[in-house]
Amino acid sequence: MKTAVSRRENFNSAHRLFVPGWSYEKNDVVFGKCNNPNYHGHNYELIVTLIGETDPVTGYVFDMKVLSDLIRDNVISVFDHKNLNLDTPHFKDLNPTAENIARVIWEILRPKIDPALVLKIKLYETERNSVEYPADPS
Amino acid sequence: MKTAVSRRENFNSAHRLFVPGWSYEKNDVVFGKCNNPNYHGHNYELIVTLIGETDPVTGYVFDMKVLSDLIRDNVISVFDHKNLNLDTPHFKDLNPTAENIARVIWEILRPKIDPALVLKIKLYETERNSVEYPADPS
Amino acid sequence: MKTAVSRRENFNSAHRLFVPGWSYEKNDVVFGKCNNPNYHGHNYELIVTLIGETDPVTGYVFDMKVLSDLIRDNVISVFDHKNLNLDTPHFKDLNPTAENIARVIWEILRPKIDPALVLKIKLYETERNSVEYPADPS
Amino acid sequence: MKTAVSRRENFNSAHRLFVPGWSYEKNDVVFGKCNNPNYHGHNYELIVTLIGETDPVTGYVFDMKVLSDLIRDNVISVFDHKNLNLDTPHFKDLNPTAENIARVIWEILRPKIDPALVLKIKLYETERNSVEYPADPS
Amino acid sequence: MKTAVSRRENFNSAHRLFVPGWSYEKNDVVFGKCNNPNYHGHNYELIVTLIGETDPVTGYVFDMKVLSDLIRDNVISVFDHKNLNLDTPHFKDLNPTAENIARVIWEILRPKIDPALVLKIKLYETERNSVEYPADPS
Amino acid sequence: MKTAVSRRENFNSAHRLFVPGWSYEKNDVVFGKCNNPNYHGHNYELIVTLIGETDPVTGYVFDMKVLSDLIRDNVISVFDHKNLNLDTPHFKDLNPTAENIARVIWEILRPKIDPALVLKIKLYETERNSVEYPADPS
Repeated sequence: MKTAVSRRENFNSAHRLFVPGWSYEKNDVVFGKCNNPNYHGHNYELIVTLIGETDPVTGYVFDMKVLSDLIRDNVISVFDHKNLNLDTPHFKDLNPTAENIARVIWEILRPKIDPALVLKIKLYETERNSVEYPADPS
Repeated sequence: MKTAVSRRENFNSAHRLFVPGWSYEKNDVVFGKCNNPNYHGHNYELIVTLIGETDPVTGYVFDMKVLSDLIRDNVISVFDHKNLNLDTPHFKDLNPTAENIARVIWEILRPKIDPALVLKIKLYETERNSVEYPADPS
Repeated sequence: MKTAVSRRENFNSAHRLFVPGWSYEKNDVVFGKCNNPNYHGHNYELIVTLIGETDPVTGYVFDMKVLSDLIRDNVISVFDHKNLNLDTPHFKDLNPTAENIARVIWEILRPKIDPALVLKIKLYETERNSVEYPADPS
Repeated sequence: MKTAVSRRENFNSAHRLFVPGWSYEKNDVVFGKCNNPNYHGHNYELIVTLIGETDPVTGYVFDMKVLSDLIRDNVISVFDHKNLNLDTPHFKDLNPTAENIARVIWEILRPKIDPALVLKIKLYETERNSVEYPADPS
Repeated sequence: MKTAVSRRENFNSAHRLFVPGWSYEKNDVVFGKCNNPNYHGHNYELIVTLIGETDPVTGYVFDMKVLSDLIRDNVISVFDHKNLNLDTPHFKDLNPTAENIARVIWEILRPKIDPALVLKIKLYETERNSVEYPADPS
Repeated sequence: MKTAVSRRENFNSAHRLFVPGWSYEKNDVVFGKCNNPNYHGHNYELIVTLIGETDPVTGYVFDMKVLSDLIRDNVISVFDHKNLNLDTPHFKDLNPTAENIARVIWEILRPKIDPALVLKIKLYETERNSVEYPADPS
């Protein structure tokens, strides 16, 4: 049976939710106050999970210090204290919803981690709203 | 791969755990202090999860504001600041355990939500006791 | 300079907020859904703080195990899994608001604790509503 | 002895920390990544405390529903899902540090609340950084 | 469809991470400050989950009081306020990583619980690092 | 009126509570399971508060990044992943109770911080036990 290990990190970002091809009014109907043209922001709480075999010698599935460094170097350094719409290449043409941010983080980290390990992302945008990607075992 | 989105809401209710057909003594053995005839109560923390495809235009699996309204209109308005045994139709003949409350909430919300979306309920009765329904991917 | 030590405990109770001498309508205006005649309930989080000198030999202001037992024997055993209005002598003629519950707990514990120690009570009724008694240094 | 009652609310905002009269370089030295010209953001957690006498009839120091409405109408509606620098009059010429935000909230609420009640503001900018105003009993 | 029920308990232990057959230098490279020969420690947060059918009469999957007692008698009594390396038989020859602790707890509890119920263990070593065993539905 | 600013940091340590001059039996009566000769441990949560005037230009009472570095360089580096009794000079002859740890941290930080600022320490040993030093306004 496999074991999951999870590491929590945080980043604080500004963003605006809108579809560029839509009118301001239509964006307001769909995204409400999240469509504020001057942006708003969040303290994002990110939980990265790896699922695999525990090494019989070390007792580790993955070194949490190494995972923390991977997340900091590839995710936190890119998103923290940034405007997701303006300061990152990932959301130039992609709406920075929590769903999309989680998937982008998965796509950033996936090539950096041994393919034998399942990778899952959980992201809290607020204490009441969160997302997970992927949602199915995979 | 699919994405899960979750919304947390809260309600505060009184309840009593007992089986009407049993003697007071048997209820005491099984339910202990939860069998207090004058009721006790909890701050319930409810997490509703939907699993589906992210809309490629909006970047949403489901609008969290719409989900919050659905939960408030159909669950919170029915259970919050109520006595679950006396004030709700759902527990007239059903013991309001956390397991049953979670299933009842699932049954209330399931017809209100697109069948293409998986629906899952997590309910904390206290910070130490929680339930999930359904527990299997479905 | 003195040191404060604090112990957190929990109890789960039903209650109803109302003034017996008022009409149902007036109680509804003032207490809203908290006036539900069949009661509602909360997970109360109680933090008891003692302020005094640290014993130079033990390094304790007060033994947290002893404080925990004091709270359990005198407060938790009286309020937990009870209906505050019906099952406790303290709220027969006193509205069980968080303010009053905190003061009652203070009055229960004060005679049990060395008068040289300041006693303070903090009570969370929900994660958003809390009270402290007394509020002034004393 | 008096009692304190506290209500927690939340708002999510973008901001940038900088002194307009300073060079970009000097702002970078002092404010670091908080000086990002495109803004970043936070989930602010606001706790408003009132200290006063408990009403002997109602058992309330202050109705938490009324306090919640006061905070929502005067603070949350102004700051939530806004850019503090661009969208609010309060920070046109005032750096939106947590210290200044807390003081501004105190100044907004103080005239709305009975002067017999002490008013205190606690503001979490992140789970690790918080401020209180005023810090002295007053 | 099945229901999951979960109970949270806590224990506080000292431990050291190292592989006895390795040099001190190699252990330092792999385990860093966790290899301190004089030990360090954690407040472990343990969540035990059982998945099964809800009893149609009681409304319980499993009595949380019974589960709490099982955990306390078989896990907390063995690990709490202990040095995992020196005071427990389980880690005489097994590195007490979070992964291994979770698996050991699963192995302790599995024979004590009806085989019809799925058993899962989640263990927080810190608020940022956690593990789950088993990670696959089983 | 002054403003308080607070920074939270964490460290994970082993310790044993006992008075060297007492018999093992007397230490057991007073310190119970905390007297385990092989040590146990905790995730300590440390909150350092400074109270002072907000700088009218920067809007800061104190730079949280500077405060974080001060705490890490002088406290976390000394106590984290250490055995408080064996690895630190501070508790060679002082029982490492939460009360004493808080006072020692205050004594370490006080000379490093502008005397115009009030310094206060809050320390959580577990989620249920915490201390503050000094407890009086000062």
